[in-house]
Amino acid sequence: MGFMSRWEPNARGRLELAALELYSERGYDQTTVAEIAKRAGLTERTFFRHFADKREVLFYGAGMLQQRLVRGIDEAPAGLAPIDVVGTALEAATELFGERTAMAQQRQAIVAANPELQGRELIKLAALAVALADALRARGVPDPAASLAAEAGVAVFKIAFQRWASGTVERPLSQVIGESLAELKTVTAGN
Amino acid sequence: MGFMSRWEPNARGRLELAALELYSERGYDQTTVAEIAKRAGLTERTFFRHFADKREVLFYGAGMLQQRLVRGIDEAPAGLAPIDVVGTALEAATELFGERTAMAQQRQAIVAANPELQGRELIKLAALAVALADALRARGVPDPAASLAAEAGVAVFKIAFQRWASGTVERPLSQVIGESLAELKTVTAGN
Repeated sequence: MGFMSRWEPNARGRLELAALELYSERGYDQTTVAEIAKRAGLTERTFFRHFADKREVLFYGAGMLQQRLVRGIDEAPAGLAPIDVVGTALEAATELFGERTAMAQQRQAIVAANPELQGRELIKLAALAVALADALRARGVPDPAASLAAEAGVAVFKIAFQRWASGTVERPLSQVIGESLAELKTVTAGN
Repeated sequence: MGFMSRWEPNARGRLELAALELYSERGYDQTTVAEIAKRAGLTERTFFRHFADKREVLFYGAGMLQQRLVRGIDEAPAGLAPIDVVGTALEAATELFGERTAMAQQRQAIVAANPELQGRELIKLAALAVALADALRARGVPDPAASLAAEAGVAVFKIAFQRWASGTVERPLSQVIGESLAELKTVTAGN
């Protein structure tokens, strides 16, 4: 919006698309910021106005997801069980992904092909669990319940997202998350 | 045992101890294999007979843990619920850690201080979840139940291990794992 977008309409989206294409075609390590900007028909300067480096193209979404989930936990109705507070927040946060199945799938393949990116992804997920546990404690959930509900929620998200992004299920992400959470409850009912 | 140990009694243990000391004192990046060997009163050649590199000192245990857990799942009694198969395997595997609380605590601090090691640790835990899910599927547990039980088990282990290694609980690791699993079941009972 405003001045910038009149000259560079949807620069961020074009840069992201160009980066994902190049990472898929040539590999992440072999791709430079100059090439991404060129493919997007933009300048390097514009790239760095939107992203700190080429890795951030893959991970800025994780920061947005974390903020959205923490807000979802803060705003969940009182009286919900901790695991359902997390479930509610996860389902609400799926609006961030919209219908971007193809891009999510492409991104997963890029991350999976590179141990450094894979490590980064797992660090982000671990940080997410810590942030969710903090948000639960702020609601008065004691430990270890807060940590366990947070870790369980991240596990549900991870598995549901993999299933959704792999294209093996055709249903919306929010529904796949709801199903995975129900399945986790069944699984942990145990004996 | 055998020839080597007559000349280098408990070389592996001495190298591990020396490495943990140096990583704590100087930082992981600042420590060389030559310094570790010297501190242990051994040669670099002996170091490389026991470890591929200085990182493996911190992670060889993860490979042993995975083998032990997969075996525990294979050998668990028939008829147990998947989550209890995992729980049984986790509790049995704690024999690997014995009374090494101090070393575990030191190792946790070293890994937490270094993003590369942290990423490596999380990759190992993610690989562990994949291996446990495979072992459950081999017992006939379908997906997503197998993946969810495996991820939940790894979450229980991670949280129980952190509590145990932090020294905030004085009970044996196997007991802390049992308690965390019971707590997870309560948490996921939800509404």
